[in-house]
Amino acid sequence: MVDVNRRWLLKTRPAGMLRDEDFDFVKEPVPEPAEGEILVRVQMLSCDPTQRGWLGRDTYMPAVKIGEVVRSLGAGRVVKSRHSGFREGDLVAGLVGWQDYAAINPTGALGVTRLPPDTPLEKALGTLGLNGLTAYFGLLDIGRPRAGETVVVSGAAGATGSLVGQIAKIKGCRAVGIAGGAEKCRWLTEVAGFDAAIDYKAEQVEQKLSAACPDGIDIYFDNVGGEILDAALARLALHGRVVLCGAISVYNATEPPPGPKNYLSLLLQRGRMEGFLVPDHYERAQEAVGALARWVAEGKLKDQVDVQEGLENAPATLRRLFEGRNQGKQLLRVTP
Amino acid sequence: MVDVNRRWLLKTRPAGMLRDEDFDFVKEPVPEPAEGEILVRVQMLSCDPTQRGWLGRDTYMPAVKIGEVVRSLGAGRVVKSRHSGFREGDLVAGLVGWQDYAAINPTGALGVTRLPPDTPLEKALGTLGLNGLTAYFGLLDIGRPRAGETVVVSGAAGATGSLVGQIAKIKGCRAVGIAGGAEKCRWLTEVAGFDAAIDYKAEQVEQKLSAACPDGIDIYFDNVGGEILDAALARLALHGRVVLCGAISVYNATEPPPGPKNYLSLLLQRGRMEGFLVPDHYERAQEAVGALARWVAEGKLKDQVDVQEGLENAPATLRRLFEGRNQGKQLLRVTP
Repeated sequence: MVDVNRRWLLKTRPAGMLRDEDFDFVKEPVPEPAEGEILVRVQMLSCDPTQRGWLGRDTYMPAVKIGEVVRSLGAGRVVKSRHSGFREGDLVAGLVGWQDYAAINPTGALGVTRLPPDTPLEKALGTLGLNGLTAYFGLLDIGRPRAGETVVVSGAAGATGSLVGQIAKIKGCRAVGIAGGAEKCRWLTEVAGFDAAIDYKAEQVEQKLSAACPDGIDIYFDNVGGEILDAALARLALHGRVVLCGAISVYNATEPPPGPKNYLSLLLQRGRMEGFLVPDHYERAQEAVGALARWVAEGKLKDQVDVQEGLENAPATLRRLFEGRNQGKQLLRVTP
Repeated sequence: MVDVNRRWLLKTRPAGMLRDEDFDFVKEPVPEPAEGEILVRVQMLSCDPTQRGWLGRDTYMPAVKIGEVVRSLGAGRVVKSRHSGFREGDLVAGLVGWQDYAAINPTGALGVTRLPPDTPLEKALGTLGLNGLTAYFGLLDIGRPRAGETVVVSGAAGATGSLVGQIAKIKGCRAVGIAGGAEKCRWLTEVAGFDAAIDYKAEQVEQKLSAACPDGIDIYFDNVGGEILDAALARLALHGRVVLCGAISVYNATEPPPGPKNYLSLLLQRGRMEGFLVPDHYERAQEAVGALARWVAEGKLKDQVDVQEGLENAPATLRRLFEGRNQGKQLLRVTP
């Protein structure tokens, strides 16, 4: 056990792409948990696009304050407990932050979830965690797929997108993925079972989308925004649905990016564009995790994890998401 | 009875604001109805923003072809019938077109509806017609208002918008209207019972919207698109809904107008933006017309009609909609 707590604190609100200089990397004493708190040794951090938003302004959660530890999901082991419901050795996941040790009220608003012993953290933070829940509720509750429909997902090789397409297949839909790079596209069709994949970096998205979706797009699950959202709107089928999950192409924009000029497809096609956030659906997390775990056990949900090493690389690892360098779930191992 | 049929035929697809020169005004013999058809003497034409779209490209209906009579809703009296279900003297409403006489298959896909004798055509073509159905289904089925919510409608002094606000009031909501000009705004608050009205020509829409909707906008019923849509999106309440009914500000645009840059409010607020077209709801027209007629009889739905005179003024009268010159339902009387 190290006797210091390394922490990344927010120094300045990033303008555009986040830089190492936007943060201070400090060493502090390992905190003592207060009464009702637990002390968690952080083992693995999850990297999620929504973290970029938390560094900006108050939205669905308050922004991280200047001088505060950078907010991040992660998982680790309880090393001290002053909470009757948790014991030393318990494995937990939650908003542990970019640090070696987190003193947390585990049952507070930003509490932690206890994981079954020996849960692989890669699964707990990905397919059976936030990404799995996001794909599950976003596709099923907001998109409401019916067998035979065509589901298009952007950011398709990412941790959420790859699950969206695979759940669409489980529900009897055609799945078309849009991703950046031949290797990601190959994985989508050859491993994850997508019907088609479009490499937006090398191919004409509009043409390829038309070819892959001859009857239009029934559900477009959007992780990226920008021109790809417009291309999908232009091809929306009658009563098509656009599930707004994110807009990674614009999170680092310094100017407000243009809106989707083809939004009137929603009128002509009697379509629906709807946003959602997973915390609204947490009451049904058990149902979702149960289904996801079953599909994993049945071999129906493949995933990829991209594990970087070392807390000192936290900003660079988060940046990989916005550079499209991650292949699948981006994780950062803090300690083995 | 005149012995010629004056008709406005589409000469060229309008670019930008429609001009008289986009049409030919011709005289033809009064047609003979074929077996199964009726001959309608057109008395009143309805002017509707969606007509602009019909002159462009195929959308939810095929575009009007070059050389065809300009498509328009209207009402008139049957003067000859070769259909067993209709008699001379029947009053009917439907897609009669810009002409004195229309030979129509009344039970075809683009048929007509028989009106009760002595129905005021101003009501049949407005509050109890397409505009009433549009407000009814758009607000109630797509917007799904709950008592106490704040409903904002643009184009609020128009035939549809004014009904949306009044139905919102009937359902226990606060109604805020956006319209162009002090006179229209005065009518909204003093006659139609809106809680607030914003004159987008003279006032700062963003500021006024914030002031009129301190808890945000639960339902935004959009008839105009453009900057007002963006202003409403920026103030969307949690789980807010945007009902896309039209976008009159862009129908005459020659370049694709920018999209709503604030669409990500739908994500952060878990909102929904949904388009609809009334024909999808025709199976429940009787329910809607029944409710609308009852509210009219109870004095709960006020309307204004703006009747211009003379078939020769058809293009100019339709243009009034896009110039914002109509106060309430725009009609054109063809014959007394």
